[in-house]
Amino acid sequence: MNRRMILYILGRILLVEALLMLPSVLVGIIYSEKVTLSFLLPMAILVLLGAYPAFRRPQNTAIYARDGLFIVAASWILMSLAGSLPFFFSGYFNNYADALFEIVSGFTTTGASVLSAPEELPHCILFWRSFSHWIGGMGVLVFVLAIVPLSDDRSMHLMRAEAPGPIVGKLVPRMRDTAKILYGVYSVMTVILIILLLIGKMPVFDAFCTAFGTAGTGGFGVHSQSIALYDSAYIEIVIAVFMLLFGINFNLYYFLLIKRAKLFFKSEELRWYVIIVAIATVAITLNLTMLTEKAFGLSLRQAFFQVASIISTTGFSTFDFALAPQFTQHVLLLLMIFGACAGSTAGGLKISRLILLLKTFFQEIRRLLHPRSVSVVRLDGNAIDRQTIHGVLSYFVAYIGILILTTLLLSIDKFNFTTNFSAAVACANNVGPGLDAVGPTGNYGGFSAFSKILLSFDMLFGRLEILPMMILFTPDVWRKNA
Amino acid sequence: MNRRMILYILGRILLVEALLMLPSVLVGIIYSEKVTLSFLLPMAILVLLGAYPAFRRPQNTAIYARDGLFIVAASWILMSLAGSLPFFFSGYFNNYADALFEIVSGFTTTGASVLSAPEELPHCILFWRSFSHWIGGMGVLVFVLAIVPLSDDRSMHLMRAEAPGPIVGKLVPRMRDTAKILYGVYSVMTVILIILLLIGKMPVFDAFCTAFGTAGTGGFGVHSQSIALYDSAYIEIVIAVFMLLFGINFNLYYFLLIKRAKLFFKSEELRWYVIIVAIATVAITLNLTMLTEKAFGLSLRQAFFQVASIISTTGFSTFDFALAPQFTQHVLLLLMIFGACAGSTAGGLKISRLILLLKTFFQEIRRLLHPRSVSVVRLDGNAIDRQTIHGVLSYFVAYIGILILTTLLLSIDKFNFTTNFSAAVACANNVGPGLDAVGPTGNYGGFSAFSKILLSFDMLFGRLEILPMMILFTPDVWRKNA
Repeated sequence: MNRRMILYILGRILLVEALLMLPSVLVGIIYSEKVTLSFLLPMAILVLLGAYPAFRRPQNTAIYARDGLFIVAASWILMSLAGSLPFFFSGYFNNYADALFEIVSGFTTTGASVLSAPEELPHCILFWRSFSHWIGGMGVLVFVLAIVPLSDDRSMHLMRAEAPGPIVGKLVPRMRDTAKILYGVYSVMTVILIILLLIGKMPVFDAFCTAFGTAGTGGFGVHSQSIALYDSAYIEIVIAVFMLLFGINFNLYYFLLIKRAKLFFKSEELRWYVIIVAIATVAITLNLTMLTEKAFGLSLRQAFFQVASIISTTGFSTFDFALAPQFTQHVLLLLMIFGACAGSTAGGLKISRLILLLKTFFQEIRRLLHPRSVSVVRLDGNAIDRQTIHGVLSYFVAYIGILILTTLLLSIDKFNFTTNFSAAVACANNVGPGLDAVGPTGNYGGFSAFSKILLSFDMLFGRLEILPMMILFTPDVWRKNA
Repeated sequence: MNRRMILYILGRILLVEALLMLPSVLVGIIYSEKVTLSFLLPMAILVLLGAYPAFRRPQNTAIYARDGLFIVAASWILMSLAGSLPFFFSGYFNNYADALFEIVSGFTTTGASVLSAPEELPHCILFWRSFSHWIGGMGVLVFVLAIVPLSDDRSMHLMRAEAPGPIVGKLVPRMRDTAKILYGVYSVMTVILIILLLIGKMPVFDAFCTAFGTAGTGGFGVHSQSIALYDSAYIEIVIAVFMLLFGINFNLYYFLLIKRAKLFFKSEELRWYVIIVAIATVAITLNLTMLTEKAFGLSLRQAFFQVASIISTTGFSTFDFALAPQFTQHVLLLLMIFGACAGSTAGGLKISRLILLLKTFFQEIRRLLHPRSVSVVRLDGNAIDRQTIHGVLSYFVAYIGILILTTLLLSIDKFNFTTNFSAAVACANNVGPGLDAVGPTGNYGGFSAFSKILLSFDMLFGRLEILPMMILFTPDVWRKNA
């Protein structure tokens, strides 16, 4: 491993994080909040630690797949450790484990909270909490890629390690330009959303925070009632549509921009995404209409919002779905696992992985029936090589393994199976709210510090798609001569 | 597909099933129960349907993998349809769906029951219920293989389709002899168990039924209190040990018989099986001692029995584990998924699959760290080819898919997530009791007919390890010119 190069990139990331704290400081100054001071020490630490390695560009800039995975995992953990400090120093969190859980939940765009009433927090802290969603949504490394000069081979390893989904493509020949395009699309969409929310008469501060939570598909709200507070069909529909939009592969938006709409509509993943959203919305609408007192219109509105919120792994809510009929709860739990599209800001397994898993299984049956036929799994018409399929299958095994292990370890705590399993699902898929005690009106504050740290790891596993985190636990990586 | 050959084998199976009903009739005569008459019509139907095809041996006896899978699935479904008739005619079941659920649960050695008080049933019906476990444990086709003259190529396809586990080996050059050896070991072990139970002063009738339930790792008891009724440490330990023994690959017993003990102890699967049982027993013992009023001795006794019962997917119980601390419940749920060894009478994923899944995942990480190294997954020192690994991975995907789909469909019914999920796990892994409403003191009677038929399919999917059942849903198989 190229240690000096790793330190160089990690140093840059620390400096970038210090910069990213500035908007929150500005908010604190605007609202003249004393607690803004809790940002100063963390920023000083970040600059002190980051400055030296960040300006010592090594001669040998070679990084391999392993270095890429390591950098991604290390940078997310460092960022979380530093990012939790303003929370901790603010005094609004019970202990360091709570502050860490909250910022990991922010950066990984999970939106699971230990707080029962976020509206009690000062503005600068709330802003940092929501802004962490926006930062984590597209990924800090993608951002760093856009500003650090690296050769394409090198940056590809970083991009691949941080970007969600089974297959990562370059949009344009230069990786750096790809990163810039992605951040451009992301920023423009966020600005449009803020404007639309302001038109809907949402307070300015709420509009910014809600837009960050939507764009990163995070789900931290500024009120314990989440989006139900605004009681506005317009706001709900705008947010629902944008949650779905941020769940689409950003590469597809680029295809639209360069007027290659054909590629946009050719995407199998997008097609399945739309179909699943439609089926789930209809199913939940019917379930709510039939089994509760709600009128059809209200059922449809709530169903569409909740389906969009859960499949995009955002986690905003307009009603307490943990009290909905069982079928509705089960469907939502399933959507948490599915997640949205690869290459978006959403978490979950990703629809494209789901398609590949299903196709592989049916190919296996075909092979049994016709042992001599050669059959290939295709996505968007392209043959997917065996190695990628193997990777997707192994990913699935690890994913299920993490859910099972987490649920088991959480059971040492005091909650029941539904709470534990849904907490594991909601955190590992970066959704946020689960069922029962961790439902939309509950929170994660009741878990022990051990459970909170466990769930924080799950959120990182989910956001970084397991492999980079696994690398940290491999003895090979830590050996001197590695 | 060779239709005449398929009919020939299915005919033989129907005749064998008529024969297998005779012991139950004998029991009915011994206890002079009028209800014994409900066996006569089913037996007549079986003989009438089976006789003609069974004695029309076709010229062309070729069968391929596809035919093998089809025969296995069709024969299990036919046997269940016919085997449920004595239950239905007896009048002790509310409707046909209940009778069908109960016999599928019997043949698949699940042991999930719709009855709240089995002790109210007449002896002949109880005997058929328990005997179905013994029949299903080793598999009827293995039995038919032992008596139908077929070439080795042909019978291998049948054996492979019915036998549990990722890799099926022949013990001796002739398949027919392999089948005979397996049934021999199975019968001798059952007889030893009956004798040991009689020594423990268990009533004769109970001893036979309990032995069938243990040998097939089924779990139907003759009393609603299951094994707790006898309140005997001796009986509990005998049953626990035999449940574990019937969960071991039968091929290993053959190695012991031919004095190749080295092969017995070389088995990685056996080693992991023992380790998992030990860890789970210790964990549950500690959990029970610390969180309940139970003394250490009683905790250990209950923990060992329950771990043996659940990992072997038998499902007997000595205490209501659905009321145990959450951690104990979670561990048991995990063991349900693991299951015991391939090539045994137990259900579940099988330890060997688990080992292969884990090894494949770690190999994937190694490949990422050292892209150019060639690494092979090994089991018992033998390299496992990519195709087998691919099969194990696809199996896992289908397995999880079935659990998820079942849980979702069950949610239309009135139960909560814990009940639905544990019912899906308990049925698809052929365990029997789950948690909450379907715990050891509960039963499956409260589910709708739709849910019962769904769970019956799950039991068949679990027992036949998915692929044979999937074949039935493939349009190819039903096409005229197939």
